[in-house]
Amino acid sequence: MLQKIPSLNQLVHELSRLPGVGPKTAARLAYHILRSPDDFVQALREALKGVKEKIHECPECFSFTEEQDVCHFCKDMMRAQDSICVVEDPADIERIESSGVFRGRYHVLHGAISPLDGISPQDLKIQALLDRLSPGPEGEIRVTEVILALDADLEGDTTVLYLAKILKDMNIKTSRIAHGVPIGGDIDYIDYRTLGRAIENRVQV
Amino acid sequence: MLQKIPSLNQLVHELSRLPGVGPKTAARLAYHILRSPDDFVQALREALKGVKEKIHECPECFSFTEEQDVCHFCKDMMRAQDSICVVEDPADIERIESSGVFRGRYHVLHGAISPLDGISPQDLKIQALLDRLSPGPEGEIRVTEVILALDADLEGDTTVLYLAKILKDMNIKTSRIAHGVPIGGDIDYIDYRTLGRAIENRVQV
Repeated sequence: MLQKIPSLNQLVHELSRLPGVGPKTAARLAYHILRSPDDFVQALREALKGVKEKIHECPECFSFTEEQDVCHFCKDMMRAQDSICVVEDPADIERIESSGVFRGRYHVLHGAISPLDGISPQDLKIQALLDRLSPGPEGEIRVTEVILALDADLEGDTTVLYLAKILKDMNIKTSRIAHGVPIGGDIDYIDYRTLGRAIENRVQV
Repeated sequence: MLQKIPSLNQLVHELSRLPGVGPKTAARLAYHILRSPDDFVQALREALKGVKEKIHECPECFSFTEEQDVCHFCKDMMRAQDSICVVEDPADIERIESSGVFRGRYHVLHGAISPLDGISPQDLKIQALLDRLSPGPEGEIRVTEVILALDADLEGDTTVLYLAKILKDMNIKTSRIAHGVPIGGDIDYIDYRTLGRAIENRVQV
């Protein structure tokens, strides 16, 4: 039947381009949308328009923002100016903020170095990060500490190694977030690589 | 961070109203959409508009259609006129068509009788079905067989019982689709109710 309703096919096609949405899920969503009231569909269309028209990258940290100029993190003078947390994606900032532990600035790389996917340091916001880390016009040190909060995968590790080397030469205190057993995690169920890292990075009590 | 980007929040809110999309999935989809090219978002918005503007219910069988008048099933004179397959949802038609076994007309109830959810026969397209089944203006029999292809749950069973009683009085041959072990199914893994039904409805070989 689907092939006889072109509009429905079209919506299934568009929805199935979303991540994690296969043809069956897309068809289920499309039928749901078809049965939904007009105002829901209108609200969804407006929301889609809104994110594309109103949101832009912060020129300072490259996170997403709806503010006129820089984002509210870069604008917030109550946050530490000399500490930058480097993340892969804007969504990561939200997770870190919810921990409530970090109160400095952020910098979004928009990805990680991945030779296999053809992503080199030039494709990421690495030069912009180095510009932020370099001394000010009168030679004053602006940033003293960088925390690398990148994913614990091959690409994240590669990016950490790449940045650590450069930052060491710049004399900036650099750390990466710890890997280990998750809080509430049962050691029985932790993979051996995580457990190995947790033992290596043991903390004195 | 989310609460600081109203447009993104709005999109997450709208997406999380879709079935099977929780807040985390909605946030993931919203970030993906934010990073997508403008033309994808535009295409998605157009597709959403299309399904609401172009698709309507067929006045004959109440399936969805984009045709001017009745749907292509009701229009198709090559299909048997005297046999109607009753389904709960338009999407069910697609499944039945893919089996290739049925070549008659359809009738969509748009749900099933469910006293718990306050859905009574009056809320479904049951009167319209009875109108289709009643003899023509000159007393000629138009429909001789009705196949009930409703879900194998409490609501489906209730609706089958309700319709079977009425159709029996109308002298229309009524059947429901068989329940049993799925093709390729392993008896070890079939629940006892299905297996019981499969034994009751055993077919001579």
